[in-house]
Amino acid sequence: MSKRSILHMLDPMPHNSPFDVNMAVDAGFDVLMPYSNVKLDSVHRLVQDAIFSRGPAGVKQTAMFIGGRDLGLAMDMLNSCKQAMVPPFEVSVLVDPSGAFTTAAALVACVAKQLKDQHGKALNECTALVFGGTGPVGIATGIIASLAGADIALVDHLLLATADDAAKEYNRRFGCTMRGAVATNAAEKSALIEQVNLIFCTAKAGIQVLSAEVLQHAKQLKVAGDVNAVPPLGIEGINSKDFGVPLAAAINSPKAVAVGALAVGNIKYKLQQALLKTMLETDKPLYLDFRNAYAMAEQLL
Amino acid sequence: MSKRSILHMLDPMPHNSPFDVNMAVDAGFDVLMPYSNVKLDSVHRLVQDAIFSRGPAGVKQTAMFIGGRDLGLAMDMLNSCKQAMVPPFEVSVLVDPSGAFTTAAALVACVAKQLKDQHGKALNECTALVFGGTGPVGIATGIIASLAGADIALVDHLLLATADDAAKEYNRRFGCTMRGAVATNAAEKSALIEQVNLIFCTAKAGIQVLSAEVLQHAKQLKVAGDVNAVPPLGIEGINSKDFGVPLAAAINSPKAVAVGALAVGNIKYKLQQALLKTMLETDKPLYLDFRNAYAMAEQLL
Amino acid sequence: MSKRSILHMLDPMPHNSPFDVNMAVDAGFDVLMPYSNVKLDSVHRLVQDAIFSRGPAGVKQTAMFIGGRDLGLAMDMLNSCKQAMVPPFEVSVLVDPSGAFTTAAALVACVAKQLKDQHGKALNECTALVFGGTGPVGIATGIIASLAGADIALVDHLLLATADDAAKEYNRRFGCTMRGAVATNAAEKSALIEQVNLIFCTAKAGIQVLSAEVLQHAKQLKVAGDVNAVPPLGIEGINSKDFGVPLAAAINSPKAVAVGALAVGNIKYKLQQALLKTMLETDKPLYLDFRNAYAMAEQLL
Repeated sequence: MSKRSILHMLDPMPHNSPFDVNMAVDAGFDVLMPYSNVKLDSVHRLVQDAIFSRGPAGVKQTAMFIGGRDLGLAMDMLNSCKQAMVPPFEVSVLVDPSGAFTTAAALVACVAKQLKDQHGKALNECTALVFGGTGPVGIATGIIASLAGADIALVDHLLLATADDAAKEYNRRFGCTMRGAVATNAAEKSALIEQVNLIFCTAKAGIQVLSAEVLQHAKQLKVAGDVNAVPPLGIEGINSKDFGVPLAAAINSPKAVAVGALAVGNIKYKLQQALLKTMLETDKPLYLDFRNAYAMAEQLL
Repeated sequence: MSKRSILHMLDPMPHNSPFDVNMAVDAGFDVLMPYSNVKLDSVHRLVQDAIFSRGPAGVKQTAMFIGGRDLGLAMDMLNSCKQAMVPPFEVSVLVDPSGAFTTAAALVACVAKQLKDQHGKALNECTALVFGGTGPVGIATGIIASLAGADIALVDHLLLATADDAAKEYNRRFGCTMRGAVATNAAEKSALIEQVNLIFCTAKAGIQVLSAEVLQHAKQLKVAGDVNAVPPLGIEGINSKDFGVPLAAAINSPKAVAVGALAVGNIKYKLQQALLKTMLETDKPLYLDFRNAYAMAEQLL
Repeated sequence: MSKRSILHMLDPMPHNSPFDVNMAVDAGFDVLMPYSNVKLDSVHRLVQDAIFSRGPAGVKQTAMFIGGRDLGLAMDMLNSCKQAMVPPFEVSVLVDPSGAFTTAAALVACVAKQLKDQHGKALNECTALVFGGTGPVGIATGIIASLAGADIALVDHLLLATADDAAKEYNRRFGCTMRGAVATNAAEKSALIEQVNLIFCTAKAGIQVLSAEVLQHAKQLKVAGDVNAVPPLGIEGINSKDFGVPLAAAINSPKAVAVGALAVGNIKYKLQQALLKTMLETDKPLYLDFRNAYAMAEQLL
């Protein structure tokens, strides 16, 4: 009888996320084991405890998931996992804190797809703003798009320093080239978006970031994507299901199109399922982070 | 392939209860996920994390369970669950802290059944005492019986104020009309039970609350129910399996009958199983608390 | 339909061990439920919560596992489990903190097997040293071998008092007769091993405890066993797969043979699987500790 598959779910937060649990069940893992309040220095021991007990056939049916809310910590935990492996006693690991990596990968891939289909352009020809740019999804969006060549500014809604710090920290870490920016009111938003080609809206659910009045200042906008599915949506006039539909509110960018939260969510869902299933099917252990998520999101589109 | 069913088990205590776990497994949930030390203000996030990841078909195979030991907190958590739902992304929730709701519902339903069968009476024609009335099962018993019309006094074994406070708090909360009472010794117990029609004994396991000597003071007793299955039982002379058997020790209430802990436990078991299974079978999400438990217990009898 | 089997896994540490989880899955338990940070005084309640909800048929499909890192605490938890049982509501319990009991049982059984096969001797005719003797595996090794009649010294690498304290504590507890010893450098190790018959090496992974230079001082060595599978191994010149192979480095004990970590690990794996499966198959509840582990390890060889 083949061994049942096991997903050891490590989370630095007080509780594992029911979202991740549901996804892992639906991806087909037989047994899910939660570990919450996991500290970075516990990861090594947990991994070594996980890899040595099932034999060579068993490790292929064993995988780990790293959640939480902090991107840097999650990546540190992934690195700690890698260092703890003792090939051939080695298992696959997926890291997706707060779903930020899969959400960001889906968002960037959807926007890039429309950019290509509707405008014949690629990310490396574009300037882009990430509103909500200092949260987990925003930072991951910025990193992915920057590594794909876009000229990225992470926009904080309160302080420039917060955005600058995030940009610097993750530039250093992943070799990308983001800047910080700030927009605390409509006037500052209007000024920021005037010449920008792409807008990623990753602010909190239920908050309208860009009103129609602000959007009319955009003169070079090509694609705007939003991940907020809870009304009011992040961009006025956008529809959650939009995928390449004209963004009418951007009256001075008549060719601008929108990507709504459900369009992104649909890809994010398929993407997370695909990543989880990949760990069950691979013959060689995989370490899956935002880079793999983006590559797979591109394939899904 | 249909999705596997998942029960997310939220518990404010340091550990989920193995009792609840066993029951949920036997009710047929495919996957159980424990969350312990859950604070009230974490419930909203946990619920929203649980409802958005499985699609419309998936939410019907997803449910939540709320445990713990504190009735008020458990009901607050249930309310927080309700507020977090975003129909059609909505899952069923069962709340049963320490099994108190199902135990109390089974106890009251069993006593009401014997009251009707043996005496032709209903709860709203009766006065009743709840010994151990300030613990979770006692309070839930009082609430259920009071809402069914009985004239209820919650009896504390140390302080009247404790009983009064509990009665007031839950009267306000659920619109019932309980009083507090105290009985610290045999004389006080004897005085209390003299004119009462119903006795619910919900004190701790292994403690005899009513001796034969005390019971002889009961002159209007019709039914006495006990949930203590560990000798000495809560009521002298009762047998755990009694279900409508004369309570011989109540010599001045010759028609009084007894309901023992195993008779109650048998219904409680069926009831908890039925409530859990209801969540798996329902097409429309259900919020199941002591009221639903009592309604279903009546059906089971 | 027969009830699914459930293993309630109690661990005093912040996280249950993925090792134990993997083993329990592979042993065939249908549902695993983790409880971490379990305090000794919570065990009674957890057990009583576990035994009363599945009926007589259900308890046979319910078991508990006690992990952690502290042998004494684990045995205390086992005792607390026993006291909480209410036959026939009683479930099997396996205690194996850090896998120490199964590892030690496998190690001692393997060494005893080679001692008999190659030298025609039994443990009760031999003196033995346990290096790494104050860690969980070392102490368990000492206890098992001492109870089998060997003259045991637990060797600490820093302080004699540490070894003496451990020996006294566990002698009192389990009726064995161990001594403490210390060896902080090669000279002290050389002196200690000069007349000894058996060496158990249970120090940390990746640390060489006995060099070839030290080993040449052994003049009466018959069998040396090592549980360290991570190079450098615990004993110079040993091979992880050795099982009765001459220990060439012990040049003044030409008949000495070695038992390597993978040989021990192979038996430990089978042993832990067998113990877990025994709980699923037994008709009468079992309490399985290092004694049962050793008895079963002997059967496996």
